[in-house]
Amino acid sequence: MKFKGMNRSFSSLSVDLYELTMAQVYVKEGLRGNAVFEVYIRDLSEDRGYAVYAGLAPAIELVKNLRFKQDEIAYLESLKIFKPYFLDYLSNLKFEGKIYSLKEGTIATHTIPILAIEAPLPVAQILESSVLNLITFETLIATKASRIRGVAPDKLLVDFGLRRVHGIEAGYHVARASFIGGFDGTSNLFAGKELGIPVYGTMAHSYILAFGDEVQAFKKYAEEYENIVLLVDTFDTKKGIENAVKVAKEIEKTGKFLRAIRIDSGNLLKETKMARSILDRSGLKDVKIMLSGSLDEYSIQMLLKNGAPADAFGIGTKLGTSADIPYLDTAYKLVEFMGKGVLKTSEKKETLPYLKTLRRFTEKGKTYYLIGKRGEELEGEEMLKEVYNSEKGEIGVSSVEEAKKNFEKEFEALPEIYKKIRKPEKIGVRLTPLLKDEIKRIKREIWKK
Amino acid sequence: MKFKGMNRSFSSLSVDLYELTMAQVYVKEGLRGNAVFEVYIRDLSEDRGYAVYAGLAPAIELVKNLRFKQDEIAYLESLKIFKPYFLDYLSNLKFEGKIYSLKEGTIATHTIPILAIEAPLPVAQILESSVLNLITFETLIATKASRIRGVAPDKLLVDFGLRRVHGIEAGYHVARASFIGGFDGTSNLFAGKELGIPVYGTMAHSYILAFGDEVQAFKKYAEEYENIVLLVDTFDTKKGIENAVKVAKEIEKTGKFLRAIRIDSGNLLKETKMARSILDRSGLKDVKIMLSGSLDEYSIQMLLKNGAPADAFGIGTKLGTSADIPYLDTAYKLVEFMGKGVLKTSEKKETLPYLKTLRRFTEKGKTYYLIGKRGEELEGEEMLKEVYNSEKGEIGVSSVEEAKKNFEKEFEALPEIYKKIRKPEKIGVRLTPLLKDEIKRIKREIWKK
Repeated sequence: MKFKGMNRSFSSLSVDLYELTMAQVYVKEGLRGNAVFEVYIRDLSEDRGYAVYAGLAPAIELVKNLRFKQDEIAYLESLKIFKPYFLDYLSNLKFEGKIYSLKEGTIATHTIPILAIEAPLPVAQILESSVLNLITFETLIATKASRIRGVAPDKLLVDFGLRRVHGIEAGYHVARASFIGGFDGTSNLFAGKELGIPVYGTMAHSYILAFGDEVQAFKKYAEEYENIVLLVDTFDTKKGIENAVKVAKEIEKTGKFLRAIRIDSGNLLKETKMARSILDRSGLKDVKIMLSGSLDEYSIQMLLKNGAPADAFGIGTKLGTSADIPYLDTAYKLVEFMGKGVLKTSEKKETLPYLKTLRRFTEKGKTYYLIGKRGEELEGEEMLKEVYNSEKGEIGVSSVEEAKKNFEKEFEALPEIYKKIRKPEKIGVRLTPLLKDEIKRIKREIWKK
Repeated sequence: MKFKGMNRSFSSLSVDLYELTMAQVYVKEGLRGNAVFEVYIRDLSEDRGYAVYAGLAPAIELVKNLRFKQDEIAYLESLKIFKPYFLDYLSNLKFEGKIYSLKEGTIATHTIPILAIEAPLPVAQILESSVLNLITFETLIATKASRIRGVAPDKLLVDFGLRRVHGIEAGYHVARASFIGGFDGTSNLFAGKELGIPVYGTMAHSYILAFGDEVQAFKKYAEEYENIVLLVDTFDTKKGIENAVKVAKEIEKTGKFLRAIRIDSGNLLKETKMARSILDRSGLKDVKIMLSGSLDEYSIQMLLKNGAPADAFGIGTKLGTSADIPYLDTAYKLVEFMGKGVLKTSEKKETLPYLKTLRRFTEKGKTYYLIGKRGEELEGEEMLKEVYNSEKGEIGVSSVEEAKKNFEKEFEALPEIYKKIRKPEKIGVRLTPLLKDEIKRIKREIWKK
């Protein structure tokens, strides 16, 4: 039995070939000086006014475990692209440098640095795709989760995404990032175990079908568990609710009670109202209603605006793929090399030079970030802090719980104009005069050539 | 240094909680008989006329490695939901049963079974989310890749997705599935190593910036490598092309030649035409042009229709997230239990009972699948074959190369009406009279209750 390749979520070889072809030339040419690469979002899409930053802890874990193993080196050798001096270099490579970052859960925006890596040029280059991947994906999902939290501030929200997200590992990151971005928990047990976050779940339609008889299936479930949530739409939702009521009445005698019913299909607005009415009429006012099935912030907002008496939502595919906009337009760009600021002037893809200093201000209900050159004296708290140093280790990196609390505090303080789920305003960005001058100076130098 | 949780792409605990709560009741109630669950696509979206089936080999790998480890059992115990008899059951669990499947690379459609698992009910139930995840994701991506291949039949197509797909593992599956679905290779070295597929890649803008001087950067690259592709849009694309020409002329003297240039920004149509014209004028007719930057089947079709003289495309984010439709509406449903067909009648989510037999026919330019009850005698070749058996192991499972060849053969034979990238016809589905009768019979039984 082969387990070969089973760990697909971590290998230092999870890089793009060009990172190594570039690195080989750097090593050959002695370009090993300190470089700063920065991760930023080039642009937010029309329906995003902000982004919830996440993915830092997994990215640090990846960076500090950077090692090329012998079988990986052998593979690289087999490509007949890499020279012995470079394969030697890779064999002994580990991360030596610093990571700067926002705190996870912070409300970020486009253009600002959300993470920066300072390390010898070849090392920082090699980390490009994998670091960008983790930050991009978790930030994408934490942002999506926050939008759902925004339209349902007092509802129970559970990640049901595992089955249709992009890989098994994606399920883990969706659980993690959605928890940071305001969700209450996940159905994913691996994520529950590794992250210590609450897990939820009860039964599927197959469970009812295996028994054949809905009442029998409900009863057997109620006998076995304390936390009883019954899925009522396998055959006919109205009948299913009535069957759930019947079982609820029976178990009352044993001191148990029905916690909730779940509806997963049909016209959810109509059926939720019907369910509430049947439950109330049956004296089961405390029984909650959970909805699931292709939900997202748009459909939940619509349901709640129309008075759907739902208490909880299980949200899977459209959360876990951020279905309305399934990627963030992020980049990982060289901004400083050996103390000198660099920038590229590619059309619509210009970059800002230097390791940055970052502040955030809210004035008259408008929020903006101020970006300066690191070392500039500015008022306010530095948002881009050193969080990892290969000598000192991690410096004040948040746990998921702390990241979640940070998000909650930030989200509450965020002006509503940025929270609209359609065409919100975007959090603004300003540059310091010093940084603007530096950009002009560097561009002049480029055009002189 | 902790590596805890690093392998996030494989754990038997990557399940939804409800799979285990259901399984506990099954075990308690003695519902351990053989069950058949089937994976199918409920509906294709408007812009998909077919789906390219992929993900089988990773799914089998997962199924045959199903084991709950001690720390996982301890976590489950800590939830105070599971009873000792069930934790014992899980501790000793392994897969005993069969997997039926299409061949990877097959052109599939909605409604038909693409994979089926036959195993004791609790076992088959536990595999739900993880099996569904892998099949759904790879099929999504292989389908997307085939659409790009469809609009660019004779171009070099390379997966550049790693940086913005949904996790590191997702990069692996995107490389694998896009290769099956018609791509030529990937930039992802881990996928290259594990799958033995071709890898591509040369340089990023940061490489040019690190040198500061574009000509110098190009020269150093050309000195080091045989396969020379130069990125020309770091500062000004026209100047970049001229610099590439200059370097091409110089290296000609050393017997090397410029293989291609790459353009990653700006108006790609205009710039490709300009590039071709400059290269041709300079006697570099053999130098190819590679394009990248937010490409997908829509933009590539537009570029080629307008005569962009491009030879190769690097396609990342929009391939790797299947950006126009980032999920497939798949399901994993119980269809048979202890020899009896079962179905659910949830609104718009009805299922078809029984382990199936499957045929495909093309008549008068129209393709359709015929679904019957397993055991029915039908003409034509069985499409849903036994591919894994816990006693015999794998049975004729394709390698990625075989899957790719299968796709190529199938795609060539597929009528054009299904290949349109906007609003294509969908491959049809028919049921045998016997299966229709069985559905009626089972529904009557349900409504009698």
